Amino acid sequence: MSNAIFYHAGCPVCVGAEQMLIDAINQAKYSIESVHLGQQPGRIGEAESAGIKSVPALLLNGQVFHINFGAALADLKS
Amino acid sequence: MSNAIFYHAGCPVCVGAEQMLIDAINQAKYSIESVHLGQQPGRIGEAESAGIKSVPALLLNGQVFHINFGAALADLKS
Repeated sequence: MSNAIFYHAGCPVCVGAEQMLIDAINQAKYSIESVHLGQQPGRIGEAESAGIKSVPALLLNGQVFHINFGAALADLKS
Repeated sequence: MSNAIFYHAGCPVCVGAEQMLIDAINQAKYSIESVHLGQQPGRIGEAESAGIKSVPALLLNGQVFHINFGAALADLKS
């Protein structure tokens, strides 16, 4: 089983969008975990050790993918 | 069938890493296409219209995810 961890800081618009990314991952091959670093600050060290510099980020089998989603202002207004 | 398009510019290290991302996507749910904008400049307009500002980027059902992989210098030397 491969491993996917999605680290984020809870922005609702970003979480919604990135939920789509998580849904796209093959759950037959990957165990998927989502970590809210604002709520779980004890895991910040682990994220840093993995090479994560910013959130949101996806850690796929130890490989870091920093994702710049960038919420649209229009989405923030709704 | 959902749709995933990965736009990139051919950096070998990045393509290798992002191949991992493509492999993680559930191919039973998503049709996956990889577009090298350096080799297919005719598709730059389509990428821009989708909201893509930089590559590499993943377009998932029309939602843009800009990915900052950032190749390690060590990888570029090998």
